[in-house]
Amino acid sequence: MNRKQLIEQIRAKKSFLCIGLDSELEKIPKHLLTAQDPVFEFNKQIIDATHHLAVAYKPNTAFYEYRGIKGWESLQKTIEYLNQNYPEIFTIADAKRGDIGNTSKMYAKTFFSEMNFHSVTVAPYMGKDSVSPFLEFENKWVILLALTSNSGAFDFQFKELKESKNKLFEEVLKISQTWADPNRMMYVSGATKAQYLSDLRKIIPHHFLLVPGVGAQGGSLAEVAKYGLNSDVGLLVNSSRGIIFASQDKDFAQKAQNEASKLQKEMATFL
Amino acid sequence: MNRKQLIEQIRAKKSFLCIGLDSELEKIPKHLLTAQDPVFEFNKQIIDATHHLAVAYKPNTAFYEYRGIKGWESLQKTIEYLNQNYPEIFTIADAKRGDIGNTSKMYAKTFFSEMNFHSVTVAPYMGKDSVSPFLEFENKWVILLALTSNSGAFDFQFKELKESKNKLFEEVLKISQTWADPNRMMYVSGATKAQYLSDLRKIIPHHFLLVPGVGAQGGSLAEVAKYGLNSDVGLLVNSSRGIIFASQDKDFAQKAQNEASKLQKEMATFL
Repeated sequence: MNRKQLIEQIRAKKSFLCIGLDSELEKIPKHLLTAQDPVFEFNKQIIDATHHLAVAYKPNTAFYEYRGIKGWESLQKTIEYLNQNYPEIFTIADAKRGDIGNTSKMYAKTFFSEMNFHSVTVAPYMGKDSVSPFLEFENKWVILLALTSNSGAFDFQFKELKESKNKLFEEVLKISQTWADPNRMMYVSGATKAQYLSDLRKIIPHHFLLVPGVGAQGGSLAEVAKYGLNSDVGLLVNSSRGIIFASQDKDFAQKAQNEASKLQKEMATFL
Repeated sequence: MNRKQLIEQIRAKKSFLCIGLDSELEKIPKHLLTAQDPVFEFNKQIIDATHHLAVAYKPNTAFYEYRGIKGWESLQKTIEYLNQNYPEIFTIADAKRGDIGNTSKMYAKTFFSEMNFHSVTVAPYMGKDSVSPFLEFENKWVILLALTSNSGAFDFQFKELKESKNKLFEEVLKISQTWADPNRMMYVSGATKAQYLSDLRKIIPHHFLLVPGVGAQGGSLAEVAKYGLNSDVGLLVNSSRGIIFASQDKDFAQKAQNEASKLQKEMATFL
């Protein structure tokens, strides 16, 4: 999917909502456990109930891998279902991969060829050759970790560098800009640190940001919109647990729709 | 596996060799392709031919994931085979994972409960809470990326920080030391930068180092031993392609044994 198609979808739906499919088997409604693949059934019903309110879905690979082969099957069925039924939806493999070149090439194959996601989240620590193999696929995207929403973000990401005077996350933004333009790269920027979004926008005015941490992790949508929006919208705001686990009863899909709808309506006011 | 058991194995075998199972389907000998699971068959024969020369095996998860469910099956069979037949061997899931706490917890479950590896490689960019869930498992290890062996290591890892005057990889070593002691944590330190091992040993005299990059990537074993050995050996030196793809014919296991034997004999001279 290219940038133009993504922006058109956002404008049409008046939404920049990404729904995180952190679909832990132990947390899905009990009545689904008799299904052949309970996690896929859960995802399917969530997607069917919310696809008109969201522009992207982001399965977090950890929540599939911990069930081994069965989890991998649920993940593959989910991406196939999305691609077949909702081809306009932007898909994100939240995998946070990154390794030396010949290994990153294999991870790129995993998520872009084997599973046909539009994008994958990538960790920056190992530098350019750990990222560039992901950029060799047409109409696929790298979403690079810059500023994450967790407490550990303060351990390294905010440390100032001697020579450039940049904080580490700013250095990541500045250097990685030379690897790919805003049509091929986005950045993860945690919503719990919304006050830093304006600094970040000075470095990368045009890139899309994937913003986790709204809702369960405490980030404010209004703050994110205030500092993060650009002329092409430039935001994908993710909510996971606040939507998909809004109810653990038979009404879970309806309740998920209600929560997604609240966020979409708020987003529409900013567009 | 605890540190004492690992050191005893190293002393008994006079080897600190780790064999990287980067077992790409397209690169294994053609005669194996008729096997029910060619990659597992390849790994099994490599392991059987080299287990007395190596103390650790390190499947790189990317080389399994790119084949989807079939790849995940090959990986699971490989770790089961190692645990059942060679329980003295230290096993490393080279997965380079790392995410916010509740997600890292799932990755820890994946590699420690679902697959029963002894250790997993973890990326440091997201800080303490991305690493600590892996440390909650008894007799399991985190192998944290510090200094990697690729060209991209120079993009961020060598940048000097303003306040502490540490290079980023040194800062990672210093800060992460407060998260776990040398009985629970090791560090990745690339052999292609062996001259930095002495600086690194000043910061972490007691930790084990997992050193990739010897052989195919150009690192020297003698240099690594010179700067990296400590009183408990403290080194696991990895070789992947140089051993497992020494031959692509029917003699591949014998040739792998020959290459592993050369490295083991050289290692014995340093112990």
